[in-house]
Amino acid sequence: MIYYDIEKKENEIWLLQREYNPWFHLKTESAFAQSNGYFGVRAAGGLPSLTGKRGMFVAGLFNCAYEEEVTELVNCPDVTQFRLILDGEEISPDGSKVKQYERKFNIHTGELVISIVFELQSGGEIKVVERRFASMDNRHLFAQCITVSVLTGKGVSGKLITGINGQQTNSGVSHFQKVDCRVYDREIMHTKGYLKEDSLSILEANACDAKTPVFTLKRRGVDAAYAVMVPEGENWTFEKYVYIHKWEDTTKLDEQKAILKDCIHKTYDRVLSVHKEKMLRLWQQAAIRIDGATLEEEASIAFAQYHLLGMMPWNSSSSSIAAKGLTGEGYKGHVFWDTEIFMLPFFQYHFPEAARQLLEFRYRGLEGAKEKAADYGYAGAMYPWEAAASGKEETPLYAALNIHTGKANKVWSGIKEHHVTADIVYAIWQYYSMTGDNTFMDKYGYEMIFQSADFWVSRAEWDEKKQAYVILDIIGPDEYTEHIDNNAYSNYMARYCVALAAMLAGKVKVENPNLYSRLNAEEKRKSWEEFAEKIYLPVPNEEQIIPQDDTFLTKKCLQDIEKYKKAETKQAVLQDYSRDEVVDMQVLKQADTVMLLNLFPQMFSPEVVRKNVLFYESRTIHDSSLSYCAHAQACASVGAMDLAWEFFEKCMVIDLDENPNDTTDGIHAASLGGIWTCVVFGFAGVNYEGEVLHISPRMPAHWKTMNFHIKVKGQNIQLTLSNTEVRLENTGINKEDIIKVEIGGEVYRLKDSLQVIIAERKEGRRA
Amino acid sequence: MIYYDIEKKENEIWLLQREYNPWFHLKTESAFAQSNGYFGVRAAGGLPSLTGKRGMFVAGLFNCAYEEEVTELVNCPDVTQFRLILDGEEISPDGSKVKQYERKFNIHTGELVISIVFELQSGGEIKVVERRFASMDNRHLFAQCITVSVLTGKGVSGKLITGINGQQTNSGVSHFQKVDCRVYDREIMHTKGYLKEDSLSILEANACDAKTPVFTLKRRGVDAAYAVMVPEGENWTFEKYVYIHKWEDTTKLDEQKAILKDCIHKTYDRVLSVHKEKMLRLWQQAAIRIDGATLEEEASIAFAQYHLLGMMPWNSSSSSIAAKGLTGEGYKGHVFWDTEIFMLPFFQYHFPEAARQLLEFRYRGLEGAKEKAADYGYAGAMYPWEAAASGKEETPLYAALNIHTGKANKVWSGIKEHHVTADIVYAIWQYYSMTGDNTFMDKYGYEMIFQSADFWVSRAEWDEKKQAYVILDIIGPDEYTEHIDNNAYSNYMARYCVALAAMLAGKVKVENPNLYSRLNAEEKRKSWEEFAEKIYLPVPNEEQIIPQDDTFLTKKCLQDIEKYKKAETKQAVLQDYSRDEVVDMQVLKQADTVMLLNLFPQMFSPEVVRKNVLFYESRTIHDSSLSYCAHAQACASVGAMDLAWEFFEKCMVIDLDENPNDTTDGIHAASLGGIWTCVVFGFAGVNYEGEVLHISPRMPAHWKTMNFHIKVKGQNIQLTLSNTEVRLENTGINKEDIIKVEIGGEVYRLKDSLQVIIAERKEGRRA
Repeated sequence: MIYYDIEKKENEIWLLQREYNPWFHLKTESAFAQSNGYFGVRAAGGLPSLTGKRGMFVAGLFNCAYEEEVTELVNCPDVTQFRLILDGEEISPDGSKVKQYERKFNIHTGELVISIVFELQSGGEIKVVERRFASMDNRHLFAQCITVSVLTGKGVSGKLITGINGQQTNSGVSHFQKVDCRVYDREIMHTKGYLKEDSLSILEANACDAKTPVFTLKRRGVDAAYAVMVPEGENWTFEKYVYIHKWEDTTKLDEQKAILKDCIHKTYDRVLSVHKEKMLRLWQQAAIRIDGATLEEEASIAFAQYHLLGMMPWNSSSSSIAAKGLTGEGYKGHVFWDTEIFMLPFFQYHFPEAARQLLEFRYRGLEGAKEKAADYGYAGAMYPWEAAASGKEETPLYAALNIHTGKANKVWSGIKEHHVTADIVYAIWQYYSMTGDNTFMDKYGYEMIFQSADFWVSRAEWDEKKQAYVILDIIGPDEYTEHIDNNAYSNYMARYCVALAAMLAGKVKVENPNLYSRLNAEEKRKSWEEFAEKIYLPVPNEEQIIPQDDTFLTKKCLQDIEKYKKAETKQAVLQDYSRDEVVDMQVLKQADTVMLLNLFPQMFSPEVVRKNVLFYESRTIHDSSLSYCAHAQACASVGAMDLAWEFFEKCMVIDLDENPNDTTDGIHAASLGGIWTCVVFGFAGVNYEGEVLHISPRMPAHWKTMNFHIKVKGQNIQLTLSNTEVRLENTGINKEDIIKVEIGGEVYRLKDSLQVIIAERKEGRRA
Repeated sequence: MIYYDIEKKENEIWLLQREYNPWFHLKTESAFAQSNGYFGVRAAGGLPSLTGKRGMFVAGLFNCAYEEEVTELVNCPDVTQFRLILDGEEISPDGSKVKQYERKFNIHTGELVISIVFELQSGGEIKVVERRFASMDNRHLFAQCITVSVLTGKGVSGKLITGINGQQTNSGVSHFQKVDCRVYDREIMHTKGYLKEDSLSILEANACDAKTPVFTLKRRGVDAAYAVMVPEGENWTFEKYVYIHKWEDTTKLDEQKAILKDCIHKTYDRVLSVHKEKMLRLWQQAAIRIDGATLEEEASIAFAQYHLLGMMPWNSSSSSIAAKGLTGEGYKGHVFWDTEIFMLPFFQYHFPEAARQLLEFRYRGLEGAKEKAADYGYAGAMYPWEAAASGKEETPLYAALNIHTGKANKVWSGIKEHHVTADIVYAIWQYYSMTGDNTFMDKYGYEMIFQSADFWVSRAEWDEKKQAYVILDIIGPDEYTEHIDNNAYSNYMARYCVALAAMLAGKVKVENPNLYSRLNAEEKRKSWEEFAEKIYLPVPNEEQIIPQDDTFLTKKCLQDIEKYKKAETKQAVLQDYSRDEVVDMQVLKQADTVMLLNLFPQMFSPEVVRKNVLFYESRTIHDSSLSYCAHAQACASVGAMDLAWEFFEKCMVIDLDENPNDTTDGIHAASLGGIWTCVVFGFAGVNYEGEVLHISPRMPAHWKTMNFHIKVKGQNIQLTLSNTEVRLENTGINKEDIIKVEIGGEVYRLKDSLQVIIAERKEGRRA
């Protein structure tokens, strides 16, 4: 169940919280955050609050405060808080009498509107409305508009105080070495905060009918106090425009000031409408229209897409997407395999240039990945489990001390979870297949693939008994199973990576001999070919189950797994069992072999897929937010629609449900990406592989048709799907390439448009 | 007017705040702080609050977070906050309905008691009472006791969450590099925070009738959640004991745990009573009983003494007293001349061993002072204007940027305000005169005096015209007058210092020839003698006015000075005039020449004193809290009682008045010391100088008698004074030395007791 009310107005959907409920502050602040890919601002109300946590995060703005802390995305100075003192009373929803409350969030524009009616101590009633958004038009721009209305009683007067507050910390850890504060022309406030290797400049210009404000320098910030005077029955409006900039270029300060002054000149609604136009253009490319979907479903899917649009560092490859996007301190703002496997597909299908940037970010990290490989005695490039701004491994070596034993557990993911290096290669090839972007491949792609292949070859060892290369002591996607041998997911992915390198070697030799020679490909090609041929791949056993690893099927099951599946808190199993005990049982935190089935939809028979999904799901607690979406997609792909829907329903509301203790430190970016992959890969059954666009709709019964655009080879394809009919239209200008489309086993060629009736439901789209 | 209500019960005075008024949070938190000299805890209520600022400060625990920040007293992890969730409602005075509120503070014991009656959303009424104190018995110990009572309605249940929160910062600046957290035996929480050069260990043990709590590790802290169940009409009690320790010695961890467990065994009231016994012993030595004083006056004087007792780092010379004691972040916890001139007298007269420690602290800083002198091209030791843990100068070179101009003003005090080096020598000699502590002098005193004298000799230069040594480009105590020549206060103090060295040289040569030789005293002695003889001392002019400096009397007066004297905000003059304009006027921030008159009560004629006090006071805005007490004392000394009382009334309430915007970042330690010097030096007219105890009461008319103890030469003298009679009794054991007492111009000899009727009021006690 979605905790929020949902309203649709003029094709825009709003989520609404109509009760003032502080227990939901942290969750709502993440879910309703304003993000434009350059920065994200948590949706904490502007008025002071007893609970909740303000936060502004700028893409790529990381810092390591102390040697013993990890590098983290910096919680930047706050620009959202305002104090309102009227008739001697400091107004706040906690301290004042709230008659009516509404916090609402426009999924399509990202605008946040908080309206509160207060009964003042002096007797009258006022309404305070706060609106804000992060501009997609100028991604340095944050806007806030505050209106105070006198509803009943005499007029009110007092002051409004707001400014830039650099006293924000990441839960008690400060990052800025110093924060310089200025006021230009008694008009524009400016702070410049210095990190160890970066700086952040924030300018703020405000507009209201008050005279010159009183500016006050604070430690690490500056405030302006404005006189407020609202006559009986009237309104008073205050507008704030904030310009946020890394590596401030002082020569451009005047331009920045001019932009803010222009906003003041335009006023809030006009600045908003320019932003909305930009959002509309993004939605035109990304929207998924589902005839028959409920408003809840429509809202959940659009919610996921809003946040995906908001977490993408558009037009920059110097940062990537964090596990919480730009909405909270969770996971320290680090980048995981989530980005390539869960979020990148959305961009690849709708905004391939963005997918390219995300992959370019990994190229920037190649040197770090090579260093990590060398540190561990491997060849090639071994990508970090957690990345920040650089390609360096950021996973801490040790988790926090166990408070009871005083011992610190080693964090093995950074040391042993290696599949990310193949996941990136998988994403590169997916990107190239759909775009044919040879420039990217020449500059970045081949090198990353070859270096990754080198890593995997060095990572494996020869097993005499198996007469195959094996990969020992590894962690697969499932983190409840550590230090295992021949994890199916990892071995298949490694084979994919190395086989791809072997396959591409010939192509590169001809097309890019310099690169071929620089990367010593000739010398390595043989080893890639041999590895690809002789890597041990766990195959389905007699019961058609692919063993997750060499010993998994020999372990005992967790008897009372339902208890933990239903538990209100995540990872409750670790309260009853030690980590070692959990590792020794057939119990999964999240999808592992199931992920493999999803990534290679053409590889296994529908029977194998079905059996494995059911087998592993019954052993999975879904303690990771990456799990439900993976299962929903896998189930849909084999037509297990009841189960698919059951998982999808859980996945849809992961950031919106009635549990106030989840999503508190940021939205679940991968799970939101997973909503999209469920819908497009799972229910629409759309999948581009091997130069063919496969389409095999498996839509829930109540969904009549789906309609969305994807980009293939630079062409813009509009899809209209139902379970019985596929209609395609190439709406782009460039229609030179004919696109091959497979529907129901038949391959068609799309130039302008195509319409196929799916005569009979077969066992699934797998050949 | 004192903002707080005052009640006296069983000889103990309570200050009470009976309205819940968040505007006064910051002030009351400072004024009602629990301090025992080892640590101080601000009196922020334990329940969460929208406003206010928690703070715990440990004496000497400094850190410099970043190169561009200054070294500051660290705001330590918080141990005061507790969350109380009852029947699903999070209780807080801001968010819940408060029916009755009282925050009261026992001036004599330092206990804080906050009682709040809440009307719950569920309908019933509960009372939450929080008590706490910082133990004087074991100065590592902080105790808190929380009682929840159901007044009306059904019983309530829920949970209480409390622990150690290391997310505290100094206004957004974090200091601990890391904070390790532990729980021992599911009973005692422990955090250890690491600073660059120090560490802080905090243990917390709690007691209540709940079962084992749930412990939760947080970033930089640990929490315990206890089940709360209070039946109808009953009480539920929770006790917390906290052990605070620098440089934790792990071998003593068991002892620390045992101390906490012993507290739990004893329960709060018994632990409190042991603390109260220790407090009582301190009060026996320090109390000033005034027959005829109003309760307000009694409370103000006792309030000053409570804080003086609480800011003294008893039994340690590794730290001294900060400008805000241990009650706030103000002035970064730095040590100024305030300590020696305003606070040290209290300790010297009541607790000479404490005065000795404060002076030993300066000896520890001697190397730093010598380095500072050398850095500026001077000889000897030049004490820092602001000191932290070391003797190093901590005054920042530049003040924060002017937000409008972007320019940083140089902070000249650290460079040019030199009198502190003579102030310390003055305090040393005062201490030695009253105690005869030769060990101290041999080990520390002579060396500090000689090194200081060397500084002053090198600081001065020969003026051909004046045929005297002059001291140019200096800042005296008054900081509105910078870069002046021959500041009267500084020149007189320099002469005092050097003359003292010259005078002592002969003594040291005989008594401590090694020291004499080590310090090259023989070589320097001549220069000291010549300096003392030939230093230029501004003498009273024809109007009997001592020129504050060479040019002061030539400057124009500030016409509208009354406006600024009456201004609600401090330093309002700097809003209308630039710093340079202020320097060019006859306008003072604080007492300057008047301070000189106070320190040398025998030096100038009563007429000179009176004329100078009136002259300079009319030019003083009193923008420094050091000013009123200085003027009150000076006026009292010459019998200008109306004026003395006018100033004293302002001084008495400096931390207690109805201005909520003052005292917010800590009490005014020097002004509190000044209350004591006004009472004892001013109104009681007691002053030990030149081996004679001078007594010349000048009490306000409504004060009948004063009664207090002082220590002279190890003897305990009880004084009972009125304006017409002086009674002395030596209550100590050691009565070997005869003490010379001067009363009304006559010198008496005190062995056991003495009674003198003051026949006729003369022009004052000055001979």
